[in-house]
Amino acid sequence: MKTYLDCIPCFLRQTLETARVSTRDERKIREALDKVCLIIPKISFDAPPPEIGREIYKIISRVTGVEDPYYNIKKEHTRYLLALYPDIKKRIASSSDPLLSAIKFAIAGNIIDFGPNSDFDIEKEIEKALHYNFAIFDYTEFKKALQNSHNILYLADNAGETVVDRILIEEIGKPIKYAVKGRPIINDATLENARDAGIHRIAEIISTGCDAPGTILKYCSKDFLKIYEDANMIISKGQGNYEALSGENRPIFFLLMAKCPIIARDLGVENGDIIFKKGGLVG
Amino acid sequence: MKTYLDCIPCFLRQTLETARVSTRDERKIREALDKVCLIIPKISFDAPPPEIGREIYKIISRVTGVEDPYYNIKKEHTRYLLALYPDIKKRIASSSDPLLSAIKFAIAGNIIDFGPNSDFDIEKEIEKALHYNFAIFDYTEFKKALQNSHNILYLADNAGETVVDRILIEEIGKPIKYAVKGRPIINDATLENARDAGIHRIAEIISTGCDAPGTILKYCSKDFLKIYEDANMIISKGQGNYEALSGENRPIFFLLMAKCPIIARDLGVENGDIIFKKGGLVG
Repeated sequence: MKTYLDCIPCFLRQTLETARVSTRDERKIREALDKVCLIIPKISFDAPPPEIGREIYKIISRVTGVEDPYYNIKKEHTRYLLALYPDIKKRIASSSDPLLSAIKFAIAGNIIDFGPNSDFDIEKEIEKALHYNFAIFDYTEFKKALQNSHNILYLADNAGETVVDRILIEEIGKPIKYAVKGRPIINDATLENARDAGIHRIAEIISTGCDAPGTILKYCSKDFLKIYEDANMIISKGQGNYEALSGENRPIFFLLMAKCPIIARDLGVENGDIIFKKGGLVG
Repeated sequence: MKTYLDCIPCFLRQTLETARVSTRDERKIREALDKVCLIIPKISFDAPPPEIGREIYKIISRVTGVEDPYYNIKKEHTRYLLALYPDIKKRIASSSDPLLSAIKFAIAGNIIDFGPNSDFDIEKEIEKALHYNFAIFDYTEFKKALQNSHNILYLADNAGETVVDRILIEEIGKPIKYAVKGRPIINDATLENARDAGIHRIAEIISTGCDAPGTILKYCSKDFLKIYEDANMIISKGQGNYEALSGENRPIFFLLMAKCPIIARDLGVENGDIIFKKGGLVG
C-alpha cells in the first residue's frame, strides 16, 4: 500500500505520542517533531507507510536516546493477555468452529497498537471477538491452503497480540515459523515479547531482521527472505504488515483490523472493520 | 494562549483539509503540506495558534491560487442560519431569560468551524443550546458590565455564526461595533458575510484589518486598535479570538465552545465545554 496525503498529519501525531512516551523533556519532543517535519518533503509516497514510520521512529530514538520506549507497555500487555489465556482457550474449545474462533481472537488482539490508533480497550475487544462480522472473509480458501501447507510462516504484529497468535498457532497444530521484528519499533513484538507469550513452546521464533513497523522486504535479512520465499502459506497479522505486503504476489492471508480510514479505503471497507483477506497468489 | 506541541499535527490536518477544499490537484495539496512542514521548525511556541494559522493559510493560498476556499460554504451556512432565525427569535422571546437564551444560541453558532474540529452538526447544536450547562459562567459580571457600557465592541468569529451574533446584538439593544476579519481566512466572517447576516441593520460593521483566524492585535489596523482601546466592553466570540486575546488586560467577555483538548486544558475545562468567561480587567 502506498502512502496517502492523510498519513502526514498522522505521522506527526504518532511522533508526538511516541516522543512523549520516550521523554518528558518538551524541547526534545519539539526537536523530534521538527526533524520529522523536515523529512516529510523528501519522502516518496510510493513507499508504504511503515517505511516512513521506520524513519520517524529512528529520529525519535536518536533525539530522545530511548531505543525501546514501549518496553514496559509491551511487557504489561503480554502479562494482561496471558492472564486471559485460559478463558480464551475454554471459549474456543466450547465453540462450534474452534479454528475460526481462534482466528477471531487473534484478530481481536490486533486492537493493541500505539501506531495509527492508540485509543483502545483490549478487554472489550476480546469480549466482542466471537461476534465479529468480517468485512472480508476468505476462510474457505484459508482452510484449503492450511490443508495443503507444511511450511507456514506467521508474521507477528504487536506484543500482547502474541498471546492470541499463540492460541491460533496451537489451534492450527502444524509446524510454524513465527517472525518478529528485528529490533524494537513502536509496540511491535520482539524475540523477547514472543518468548514472553510462550510462542517458543509451539513454534520456531525467527526475526525478519526488519526494523520497520511492518515487514518491508528490502529491510529484511537474507535468512528471513529465504524463509519467506520458501513458505507455501503466510499468515500476516496487522495493518503494518498489510501496508508492507499488500502488493506482493505470495500466498498470504492478511488478518487485521482496519484501524484508520486510509487503510479502510484501500481495502474497500469501513474504518474498524475486521479483515480476513487472501493475498494475490492464493487459491 | 501559547501554541502547544499538540497543535503541530493539528496544523497539518488543517492544511490538508483546507488544501482539499481549495483544489483537487494532489500535487498542489502535497506541496502545501510540504511547505507547512518546512515552517514548523521555525515557529515560536510563544505565539498564539492563530498567528501560525495565518502563515499556514497564506501558504495554502499561494500554492493553490485560491484566496477564499470557504466562500460558498460561508454563504451556505449564513443562508442556513437565516432560515432558522425566526424560530430562534421565537424561542428566545418565550424563554424566562431572553438575554441568556440569546447568549446560548450565539455560542451554539460557534460550532460552525473548519479549523480545529470540522465535524459538526449545526442543527443538533441549535437544538441543544437552551439546555447548555456552562463550564465557566460569568453571566452576573456580564450583565453588570453591560449596564455600564455604552461603547461595546463585538469580535466576530465564523460566517453563519454571524446570524446568531445578530440575534444576541438585537437582544442587547445597545450600539455595538461588530468587527470582522480584514480578509478571508478559513470560514471566519468577512464584511460580506456580516452583511449577508443582516448585521448592518443593527450594528456598525468594522474590519479588524487582521488576516489571522483570531484577532491578533499586531496584525490589526490602527483604526481598529483605537476602537479596541476605547471600548469599555468587548464581547469576543470563538476559539481563535480567545487564543489571540486571552492574555490581554481588557474588559473582554469570551463566548466560545472549547473545540480541542488543548484549549480545554488551557481553560481548565473539558473538550466540548461551553464557556462564558470574563477576561482580566472585568469586574
